[in-house]
Amino acid sequence: MSVNRPLILISNDDGIEAAGILSLVAAMDGLGDIIVAAPLNEQSAVGHAITMRDPVRARPWPFRGPSGQITAYAISGTPADCVKLAMDKLVPRTPDLVVSGINHGPNTAVNVIYSGTVSAATEASILGIPAIAFSYCRWGGGDFEASGRIARKIAERTLKGGLTPGLLLNVNIPDLPLSDIKGLMITRQAKSKWEESFAERMDPFNRPYYWLSGKFINLDSGDKTDIAAVEAGFVSITPIQHDLTAHQAISDLEEWDWS
Amino acid sequence: MSVNRPLILISNDDGIEAAGILSLVAAMDGLGDIIVAAPLNEQSAVGHAITMRDPVRARPWPFRGPSGQITAYAISGTPADCVKLAMDKLVPRTPDLVVSGINHGPNTAVNVIYSGTVSAATEASILGIPAIAFSYCRWGGGDFEASGRIARKIAERTLKGGLTPGLLLNVNIPDLPLSDIKGLMITRQAKSKWEESFAERMDPFNRPYYWLSGKFINLDSGDKTDIAAVEAGFVSITPIQHDLTAHQAISDLEEWDWS
Repeated sequence: MSVNRPLILISNDDGIEAAGILSLVAAMDGLGDIIVAAPLNEQSAVGHAITMRDPVRARPWPFRGPSGQITAYAISGTPADCVKLAMDKLVPRTPDLVVSGINHGPNTAVNVIYSGTVSAATEASILGIPAIAFSYCRWGGGDFEASGRIARKIAERTLKGGLTPGLLLNVNIPDLPLSDIKGLMITRQAKSKWEESFAERMDPFNRPYYWLSGKFINLDSGDKTDIAAVEAGFVSITPIQHDLTAHQAISDLEEWDWS
Repeated sequence: MSVNRPLILISNDDGIEAAGILSLVAAMDGLGDIIVAAPLNEQSAVGHAITMRDPVRARPWPFRGPSGQITAYAISGTPADCVKLAMDKLVPRTPDLVVSGINHGPNTAVNVIYSGTVSAATEASILGIPAIAFSYCRWGGGDFEASGRIARKIAERTLKGGLTPGLLLNVNIPDLPLSDIKGLMITRQAKSKWEESFAERMDPFNRPYYWLSGKFINLDSGDKTDIAAVEAGFVSITPIQHDLTAHQAISDLEEWDWS
């Protein structure tokens, strides 16, 4: 590997064998040296979980990109574990960019908080590395061609321009052929929630158990949200941050009477 | 239960048998009707994970508060699962307040993002319920007396004044007797990171494995941060939010040349 080339660390939450990460590796081909550290098994909806009580393993993995063999590891942990372990033990030098995905399905609105894909990018951003999470807004199947092209363009631009420390990009790509995509839109997360309706069932021993299911409710009628952008055929780019402080609320709370 | 009394839902991440949740139930005693929905097993560092691939169970649990038996369930899932399931299936009416904790150990700075305690409160806030996460800044043992008193005071104030939708409070209480606590301080999360140093070991089959360990680095010299407040003997109250959008970065990114 040349030290003059950018180093790009690639992770995801669908697991190292997912079609989406293969597309992301292909999309980054030639942009720099590439290293993959991705979960051995699917890790959707793990949020920002990390593994503290159990050991983590990194298994060298035969990963073939368009230009040949890629250095890759399958990790027995969460997406955040992958980035932490890679940064400490696996990368030959500090990466210039961390990309995560391409996720099979959208990560818009409140779903960002549950997303393992976003969590890998968030972890990189905490460690001071520019990071991007990519999601293809289609559940299963489909063609990652357009998503790959767009991921390439946004990664190139980010490598060139950098990102303000503490920021990362959450990118959602509509399920359209490249020629039908209307452009890029900078967005905010739509206000939304899940209206849960757990399915209640009985096991063979007549004890109840529940399956999580629910209905997604978009509470936001704005036209510059991540959901609105994708619905209108745009690629949504949301700048997000790992600082959860509601800075705008501090002065209000300081005026509360606490006595 | 009287419908005129507030309903308070209590959860945590240390598990339903932790000393901290017992203290929190005692602290809320008399403030309203109480229902507990907490993980059966410890769920630290799970972040905002939710259980999608497996069923979740809720086992009625004999939980004794200072005024007698409390309605309580031990849930086979994460803190976010507890709140989701309780809101859908277990509560007799919509809670007026969700409190989480009292965590055994601080949840300040970047640790907020990994915290199961905070995640239970975040989930409530997504569902539109005022919510507070409480942490006692001592790892293991200690006396929850002061923490309980402070939790009571902040819960009372929040029940009276409500919280702006989308906000929740992250409260960290120093390990001091009540008489030595200097007061309450409204804070922001300190900028920080973990500098990982995974311990590398060999298993009996000569295959490497890693244990997460690391050094916490406070990158923030501000005096109104959560860490600074606790170190100075104040209770830290940080308003946090589940919207991760970096609103201040949107106009900058709109000016990027994406061509």
